[in-house]
Amino acid sequence: MRLYVTPASPWVRRVRVAINELGIADRFEYVQTRWPHSWGTQTVTTLAPDFAAATPVARIPALVTDSVTFTDSNAIVDYLNAEFGAYRLLAREGAARWKALAVIAVASGNLEAQIMRRAELLRGDDKRSDDFLAKMRDRQMRCHAAIEKDHLASFGETFDLAQITTAVACGYDEWRYGPGWRDAAPKLAAWYDAVAQRPSMKATEPAETPQR
Amino acid sequence: MRLYVTPASPWVRRVRVAINELGIADRFEYVQTRWPHSWGTQTVTTLAPDFAAATPVARIPALVTDSVTFTDSNAIVDYLNAEFGAYRLLAREGAARWKALAVIAVASGNLEAQIMRRAELLRGDDKRSDDFLAKMRDRQMRCHAAIEKDHLASFGETFDLAQITTAVACGYDEWRYGPGWRDAAPKLAAWYDAVAQRPSMKATEPAETPQR
Repeated sequence: MRLYVTPASPWVRRVRVAINELGIADRFEYVQTRWPHSWGTQTVTTLAPDFAAATPVARIPALVTDSVTFTDSNAIVDYLNAEFGAYRLLAREGAARWKALAVIAVASGNLEAQIMRRAELLRGDDKRSDDFLAKMRDRQMRCHAAIEKDHLASFGETFDLAQITTAVACGYDEWRYGPGWRDAAPKLAAWYDAVAQRPSMKATEPAETPQR
Repeated sequence: MRLYVTPASPWVRRVRVAINELGIADRFEYVQTRWPHSWGTQTVTTLAPDFAAATPVARIPALVTDSVTFTDSNAIVDYLNAEFGAYRLLAREGAARWKALAVIAVASGNLEAQIMRRAELLRGDDKRSDDFLAKMRDRQMRCHAAIEKDHLASFGETFDLAQITTAVACGYDEWRYGPGWRDAAPKLAAWYDAVAQRPSMKATEPAETPQR
């Protein structure tokens, strides 16, 4: 299977941590993609043809298998968990699945806000909206606080997709925007410091995406 | 169950069409939310307290049940399909599920682009980026064309979540941005014109969201 990646994307990291936790990393060819900083506001016209053919959305991650192509991380992790993980990272059905999906929705909303804030920061000074940056930051902090308040105490032994998505949201916030998020959710931050030491997280620490 | 809605949101429409197709509309209390046009760039501070408590992401739809709260449409439709639909709108596992998720990812990427374009249009003239508007439009057209090219011929008899999400993406594009998308995918447009006549689609045609 071919997985299109960048080292900065938290959506890619979410997939790679899941892959590493499932112990199936050797089943994938990891294809590095390159992006100009203008991606924040402009259609990128320098994508490799195979990547452009794989995803009309033109975002990473994208997974190409013999039978199907997935263009977002939700579809990818659902597929990998079922086909290669025996539902170890997300229950197939029932209360355990719904509880996990509730957490994943909040952590994903947080990640979306972090990426939209990043895109905003890449705009020229004249088109950058300080209000929008503040709106995204507010959402990030609300999401961190809600995970701490409503879900952290019930996190189980398995570093599952709910925990993976949460940890990646903490990690991207810290890497891109600094430790400010810790004030919004100090207990979550303590949990994050522990899980950040897992080999799956250490092997996928973010780095800047190669430019083109 | 309480479902927080607006008449404009395609993410809400996706959930409501699924509910109508499953014949379970009477199980829900539909709670209208109101939004100022400043939502495009500013944190909305006038949300009803029960809605704000339900969703730290502060977006619709949100579904509140006795046991769990979901803050995005992916989690909601996964839950409803399993618990109230016997997997009629999305297979529980296997090739049929993966094929549907591949379509849903592209249609959802299209919807995201449509909403980001709407938010951009709500900005003041000085902060609005014509490049960003064009980038979103380009993505929309690529996604419509890809669904037509790669998936339309294999759509089955059931108006399932892949078809519902696709139809809602067509419908929002038409309502908000006019018939231009039809040039990118004329066969998809003919399909859309047929499914738009279904009662589930007719009952959920978009209208402007109430202001506050």
